[in-house]
Amino acid sequence: MEHHVPTVQEDAAGQPEVCRYHIERPVYNEGYIQSQLLHRRERCHPTQRQRLARHVQCSAERVKAAALSFLPILTWLPSYPVKQYLFGDVVSGLSTGVMQLPQGLAYALLAAVPPVYGLYSSFYPVLLYTFFGTSRHISIGTFAVISLMIGGVVVREAPDSMFYIQATNSTDTSTVVDVEARDATRVQLAVALTALVGIIQLALGLLRFGFVAIYLTEPLVRGFTTAAAVHVFISQLKYLLGVETQRFSGPFSALYSVTAVFRDITSTNITTLIMGLVCSFLLYGVKYINVRFKKTLPVPIPGEMIIVIVSTGISYGVGLSDNYGVDVVGKIPVGLLPPAAPHFSLLPSLFTDSFAIAIVGFSMGISLAKIFALKHGYSVDGNQELVALGLCNFISCFFQTFAVTCSMSRSLVQESTGGKTQIAGLLASFVVLLVVVAVGFIFEPLPQTVLAAIIMVNLLGMFKQTRDIPVLWRTSQIELAIWLVAFVASVLLGLDYGLLVAIGFAVFTVIYRTQSPKSAILGQVTDTGLYCDVAEYEEAAECSGVKIFHSNSPIYFANSELYVNNLKERTGVHPMHLQAVRKAQRNLRTRNHKWNSLRKMDAEVKLEMDVGVAHSEVMPDNQVKAYKASTEEDPFLEPLTSIHSIILDWTPVNFIDSVGAKSIRSVIKEYAAVDVQVFIAGCSRTLLSELGTLQFFTGVVTPEMVFPTVHDAVLHSQQQTGPATNHSVL
Amino acid sequence: MEHHVPTVQEDAAGQPEVCRYHIERPVYNEGYIQSQLLHRRERCHPTQRQRLARHVQCSAERVKAAALSFLPILTWLPSYPVKQYLFGDVVSGLSTGVMQLPQGLAYALLAAVPPVYGLYSSFYPVLLYTFFGTSRHISIGTFAVISLMIGGVVVREAPDSMFYIQATNSTDTSTVVDVEARDATRVQLAVALTALVGIIQLALGLLRFGFVAIYLTEPLVRGFTTAAAVHVFISQLKYLLGVETQRFSGPFSALYSVTAVFRDITSTNITTLIMGLVCSFLLYGVKYINVRFKKTLPVPIPGEMIIVIVSTGISYGVGLSDNYGVDVVGKIPVGLLPPAAPHFSLLPSLFTDSFAIAIVGFSMGISLAKIFALKHGYSVDGNQELVALGLCNFISCFFQTFAVTCSMSRSLVQESTGGKTQIAGLLASFVVLLVVVAVGFIFEPLPQTVLAAIIMVNLLGMFKQTRDIPVLWRTSQIELAIWLVAFVASVLLGLDYGLLVAIGFAVFTVIYRTQSPKSAILGQVTDTGLYCDVAEYEEAAECSGVKIFHSNSPIYFANSELYVNNLKERTGVHPMHLQAVRKAQRNLRTRNHKWNSLRKMDAEVKLEMDVGVAHSEVMPDNQVKAYKASTEEDPFLEPLTSIHSIILDWTPVNFIDSVGAKSIRSVIKEYAAVDVQVFIAGCSRTLLSELGTLQFFTGVVTPEMVFPTVHDAVLHSQQQTGPATNHSVL
Repeated sequence: MEHHVPTVQEDAAGQPEVCRYHIERPVYNEGYIQSQLLHRRERCHPTQRQRLARHVQCSAERVKAAALSFLPILTWLPSYPVKQYLFGDVVSGLSTGVMQLPQGLAYALLAAVPPVYGLYSSFYPVLLYTFFGTSRHISIGTFAVISLMIGGVVVREAPDSMFYIQATNSTDTSTVVDVEARDATRVQLAVALTALVGIIQLALGLLRFGFVAIYLTEPLVRGFTTAAAVHVFISQLKYLLGVETQRFSGPFSALYSVTAVFRDITSTNITTLIMGLVCSFLLYGVKYINVRFKKTLPVPIPGEMIIVIVSTGISYGVGLSDNYGVDVVGKIPVGLLPPAAPHFSLLPSLFTDSFAIAIVGFSMGISLAKIFALKHGYSVDGNQELVALGLCNFISCFFQTFAVTCSMSRSLVQESTGGKTQIAGLLASFVVLLVVVAVGFIFEPLPQTVLAAIIMVNLLGMFKQTRDIPVLWRTSQIELAIWLVAFVASVLLGLDYGLLVAIGFAVFTVIYRTQSPKSAILGQVTDTGLYCDVAEYEEAAECSGVKIFHSNSPIYFANSELYVNNLKERTGVHPMHLQAVRKAQRNLRTRNHKWNSLRKMDAEVKLEMDVGVAHSEVMPDNQVKAYKASTEEDPFLEPLTSIHSIILDWTPVNFIDSVGAKSIRSVIKEYAAVDVQVFIAGCSRTLLSELGTLQFFTGVVTPEMVFPTVHDAVLHSQQQTGPATNHSVL
Repeated sequence: MEHHVPTVQEDAAGQPEVCRYHIERPVYNEGYIQSQLLHRRERCHPTQRQRLARHVQCSAERVKAAALSFLPILTWLPSYPVKQYLFGDVVSGLSTGVMQLPQGLAYALLAAVPPVYGLYSSFYPVLLYTFFGTSRHISIGTFAVISLMIGGVVVREAPDSMFYIQATNSTDTSTVVDVEARDATRVQLAVALTALVGIIQLALGLLRFGFVAIYLTEPLVRGFTTAAAVHVFISQLKYLLGVETQRFSGPFSALYSVTAVFRDITSTNITTLIMGLVCSFLLYGVKYINVRFKKTLPVPIPGEMIIVIVSTGISYGVGLSDNYGVDVVGKIPVGLLPPAAPHFSLLPSLFTDSFAIAIVGFSMGISLAKIFALKHGYSVDGNQELVALGLCNFISCFFQTFAVTCSMSRSLVQESTGGKTQIAGLLASFVVLLVVVAVGFIFEPLPQTVLAAIIMVNLLGMFKQTRDIPVLWRTSQIELAIWLVAFVASVLLGLDYGLLVAIGFAVFTVIYRTQSPKSAILGQVTDTGLYCDVAEYEEAAECSGVKIFHSNSPIYFANSELYVNNLKERTGVHPMHLQAVRKAQRNLRTRNHKWNSLRKMDAEVKLEMDVGVAHSEVMPDNQVKAYKASTEEDPFLEPLTSIHSIILDWTPVNFIDSVGAKSIRSVIKEYAAVDVQVFIAGCSRTLLSELGTLQFFTGVVTPEMVFPTVHDAVLHSQQQTGPATNHSVL
């Protein structure tokens, strides 16, 4: 074997100083490679017992590492650089805290529980995340999509119709809803659901199942959250208009809700509507200013807080609730509730929903955490994030909270106002605590329409995701399909079933991609050892008598049949037809010498039609003619087709299953019966060992049919036909 | 460029007469290939309108072809070679016909309808299939699995409890079932279900959805049918024992059924049991003889028919029903029923079930049809088979039949007794017709236990499929998992949900395979241009300063993160750590010259730990030392790591989606920031055009980073480092 030294020289084609690609070696096949060329490294595999022992051994270091990974606060708090970080964290914490308040109140409406529970949910989990979380910048707390999902479940399990009582203080016979009993039941449901969400997240985290979030691909999440925004928007319409309608849940609830609101649109409370619209425009303006003058403003203007305070003042001063019939937040008890266990008896009917909420909550959190981690150069641990979220939800639910995750808008504020660590989150939770224990009651006159306005303006970012559609249309139509399916299914079927359908669809797109492979016949680009599609590129020239078949997919149950069909179509060599021709020939020879020449012509014409016409683009005329000429000379000894070898390019084959291996074996046998050799080229070593396990190499199929590269296989197949055809190689 | 001629010569290693692999050319990159080397062929794509016009144009030939494909009988009947085929077809038709009779009666029990409907189902569809079917050898008719699925649905929708009436002719207050009303309702349900199955199959066939059967991979079908055999066996226990129990359906029905039978086992009718067991043993003996002496017997012994006739005679003679309380078939009306439309109002609740039945029925039929077609050298058309089955079921159901497909045992008899075409099926249907219109009533005294025996003995073949388990354990554990999931889910959850779970699982195994790729660092096998895993093979040597990363999977949403993590782990080059080191270095330089040398050493040691210790198996000690030495000389100008280039081997990458492309772009940028170049090698041209659509090649990522082979990329990256390092190439 020659040694080569890469040389640097000027190439005629204009590439300056390219080094040369030079290889000179014998043609290898797998039989030779396995027996002579390559030797497996000896590796001492640890026994099962050693591995187990290593796994369970306990040392001080391991305990310390486990404690640190379970309580990440221990890693950063001791070395907290007070001078550098504290000011930023305080500013950021206060800014985030004043956002938590109105959002907590608003999202409680979405979750169909009284507003004060939103405040609880903005305190306990935020406090806990400081200890368990690995992200330094995300703001844990109430989040629109999760709150809406909780609301959907709660309303389904405890609909208004469960709580109809006879109106007592009026003379008519109409029924009214017992609001107190209803809200108590709904809180119980939300708390039980949150407990289950926490348990699921904790279990997934401890089982190291953080990877489940990967099935939520970006187009899916964006389509899904856009749909969630539609649901949230629809659910807020009635508060904005001051119309009283039932709340729906389940499939098609969005349609029912819109219909219900428009049916009662005549009862719109004009004061409510005006107030809502004014607040929306003001909020939008503030958001715009915050973005526009981001660099000049020291901290973002807390627009939501200002509007809440001002509108509460106006409402209290004018008496909006009593004089204008505007719905207000109503009773907010002061102080925290004593801990109480959630009603575990409610859990069985909530399992599916809580699984959906747990997954969505986690995937929202982790995706945002990763963005910040990448930006600031640290890493987050998906499994620990699951554990942290699970603990936040599970422990907090004993204090009557509903499920939380991180909110995008708040997290952006927390990061942009200079927050460096979760000290900011801790401070934000203290702001909420202060309000809850001291001055919560002042929000009682706050009109619900203001909360609706806050929610709606926060949705704008999500609606902007519809801009994905034209972008995806240009780049990837499969991903556009995922986006649209996630969106449409989630809008129509509700967020839980929608998510399920979307995940199922996303998974099927992967199957679809492997199942509808692009296949091609390859030809060599002269003198390069490179092969590419002859139908696509001018320079690719087929080697005479050899067909190189390429199909960019693994070979397994869902596409093995297609692979074989494509192979026969593309190469134009159908073993069955050839066999029929051969049978006919044999019959003729033994039976009837007289009719021989006539019927042979018939069979040939048939073959020509089968092989030639259908695939005239891949089999040039001269080949057909050559074949015809050869059969006329000596019909019984000549091969049935001018193609003596078929090379399967398996470089793109990542895996093969038993169904695929069986198909390939049977097609090799079929071709062998009509004297066409099949070679396999470009197998990776992993695939080869898989083929070994599948007992692929038995009988007529041998490792000698396998070549490391397509070029090896081509050279081998051409050499086999003898020097006579060698001139037609290139 | 040089031309090369393959030369034949004796190789030193012992391979006789191998030709040489010789390539000598410049190193190419994609930029050069696209601009200079390859030119796309000009192809005139037909416009949308032309394509539409071509699609809808109507010609006599097209009409004829359509008619022939819709009525395949027109293609073979006119040229039917009477002399050659007729005798075989007659023998085969009669043999199959006498099998249809007892199986029809028996499977009607499974479908929970009176036995005579089994006879109807063995006549009409068989007749129709002759005209529409493309397979020449399969025997359409009643089939155990399908019948059981129908029975499950029918019993669920019309349980015994719906038809309790007060016992009239006794003094006690117990309730009895109004058998006549129940059976009438059940027949209606079965017929409606069959109509829907037919419509679904027809629609799928016309929409060319024949491919849906591919999701039913072989291990899945075998696990599923074994589970079906378990269900059938359990459902027959009560007939064999003569115990009267309720029939269950839905999840866990198998457990309930077994429990119910064993609870009442004391009421076993001994006569029934003995008769059943004797028949079973006789039948098994006949089957054994038929297989053992296949070659010497002219036609298989019609064991089932003989036993039916003999046992009917005994039952009639001894009066088994009246004297020994043996359950018999009971009333069989003579003649056919007038056509009647199915009750379409029943359809909505049956949709899911009928979809499952339609798919299972079709996949059973097509798999058997393909086996015979392959054996006898003709082809079957999956879509036309769907149309044929759909028409058989839909048209027949107007004559009160239940859904059919082909039965394996009958088809084997039809083929082995010399059947050449569906003329055999036609004759078999006439045999059934004859019995129905003339002598059906003679089967009235036939004991049900005999039918149970027939069913059970026919199941033996399916139970033998459990032998797959050890075979699959050795060859493919993923496929074993599919088998087991299909089996366990179908036994426990029932056949419908079981099938759904099994298909879902089979699809997820594909995702799992792409999602848990094997990754490796490749090294060159000296002088061959071949690259393989350095951890696996002794001969593979890494090129200094270059890491070649290989991962055998596409890059898409479910694994892109894993890909990037594996890349960083395997290469041992973590951009984040290096960046941190660089930042520390810069801080040191600008802030504190005094402490410079001391802290630099610290940072170095940290880097060494990160890069070296964790990956000592991939980075030899001398490299670490070399790096350390170089940084000591000039800490601020030297690169941060001894690895200057990373090559991503993308030969196994079949497709990439936007999430994957984004990850790769970002990792390229990350590496660029720490002066590590990333090259991509071995992209297929399809993948390149996908990358183009995804706008992958913008900014720092250029086509010049892409090389056609790994060897090109290695040569390029080594040339870039200058001649000084060239000596370490090989």
